[in-house]
Amino acid sequence: MIQHWIRFRHLDIVRFGTLEGDKIRVFKGDMFDSPQRTDIAINLAEVEVCTPVVPGKVLAMWNNFHALGKKLGLAPPPEPLYLMKPPTSYLAAGGTIKKPRVDAKVAFEGELAIVIGRTCSGVSADSAPDYIFGYTCANDVTVGDIINRDPTFPQWVRAKGFDTFCPFGPVIATGLNPAMLVVRTILNGEVRQDYPINDMVFSCAELVSRISQDMTLEPGDLLLCGTSVGVGSMRPGSTIAVEIDGIGTLSNRFE
Amino acid sequence: MIQHWIRFRHLDIVRFGTLEGDKIRVFKGDMFDSPQRTDIAINLAEVEVCTPVVPGKVLAMWNNFHALGKKLGLAPPPEPLYLMKPPTSYLAAGGTIKKPRVDAKVAFEGELAIVIGRTCSGVSADSAPDYIFGYTCANDVTVGDIINRDPTFPQWVRAKGFDTFCPFGPVIATGLNPAMLVVRTILNGEVRQDYPINDMVFSCAELVSRISQDMTLEPGDLLLCGTSVGVGSMRPGSTIAVEIDGIGTLSNRFE
Repeated sequence: MIQHWIRFRHLDIVRFGTLEGDKIRVFKGDMFDSPQRTDIAINLAEVEVCTPVVPGKVLAMWNNFHALGKKLGLAPPPEPLYLMKPPTSYLAAGGTIKKPRVDAKVAFEGELAIVIGRTCSGVSADSAPDYIFGYTCANDVTVGDIINRDPTFPQWVRAKGFDTFCPFGPVIATGLNPAMLVVRTILNGEVRQDYPINDMVFSCAELVSRISQDMTLEPGDLLLCGTSVGVGSMRPGSTIAVEIDGIGTLSNRFE
Repeated sequence: MIQHWIRFRHLDIVRFGTLEGDKIRVFKGDMFDSPQRTDIAINLAEVEVCTPVVPGKVLAMWNNFHALGKKLGLAPPPEPLYLMKPPTSYLAAGGTIKKPRVDAKVAFEGELAIVIGRTCSGVSADSAPDYIFGYTCANDVTVGDIINRDPTFPQWVRAKGFDTFCPFGPVIATGLNPAMLVVRTILNGEVRQDYPINDMVFSCAELVSRISQDMTLEPGDLLLCGTSVGVGSMRPGSTIAVEIDGIGTLSNRFE
């Protein structure tokens, strides 16, 4: 059964639950470990949406789609290539992506994100799905010009680590087969990215398995699967939405 | 007045306090916001030392010492160059650095670390010291061979992000002038690094100021100042210590 988990603030209290039409069914306990359904339902329209989890770490893939690699003249990498985005970059659906102090173009990158559900270390690709809680939409916001401006050290963490540069949400969908998903990124109402997840170099299960060889993945950790063709920059005043049918729409203003 | 803040586990409870000879003076409340001295003192020998803080993020500098840059043929960078280390890499003094699954040499890098004490964004170098809580010892453990093995994407986060690859502690020293400090790294009793902090390209105040232009720094965040000459690899079974007079000695086994 597909469920959509949401975290929200209502009357100054942060809670979580699942979507039931235009209501939220409130749950108690730990989202990742036997959460308990309550009798309380709250109108979705009355809450402030939070990030669906507060990840301990967010790892973001680079060059993980065949179509984008081909366009950039890059071979598929032999192993997942990733960087990390800081907690101060996390942003909820509906939040405002802020133009950094640096005077440079800011790019959107619509992506699927894997949400880890159980602690895992050194797991096989076959068993990796057991450790995945679900999937959400993410925008790997980037100042592209910074990455290579120092010839000795590509500044991936900095270019993608400004405050508000990691919007994700609005919900986590569970019980979903990620291979059939399609990511659409919509800038001011215009579709700019529209690509299938089955074009990934490393599948979701392979990403979890391979990265868990390096470092322990913990409940709530996010793996951003990388982006594909159609990346572009945003002008202040724009609205940027990452839409994945079966999950939902992550919409943010950029100012 | 110089104080040494420590976090520790005693009778299954995690507390914090300051060193008083061979005792710990227990404090209550928030280490960064008016902590309250109590009447309780506990013998240092009876506790398990924890990391002195649990950082939201750890940023690690690259090429921030003139002596190492000169040795490697690198010019001083025009801006701080940094990567990020994940929470699963944090390790307390006395903890064991674990050899990763990958079969490769593991290097030590003894470093001074800045501990942020107040939320800061866009602060000047002049006011940056007001946002620094204190200083601790760190070891920026690294699998060097991984960094450049993909020609298209230097894997800094991965090479420095394995579990247990960020030992820091044992204490945070406050009321200290970092410019006069000297970092010594001792492998199995032999001094391998012995370098002065005043050789830094960007001083502690400059690092906090510059990086706070990019992202908000929060209480407990760590900035690892980068290492200098003398880096080397460790064999399993080694003991590696980072010693900074005025702070203390961070000692860890590598297995």
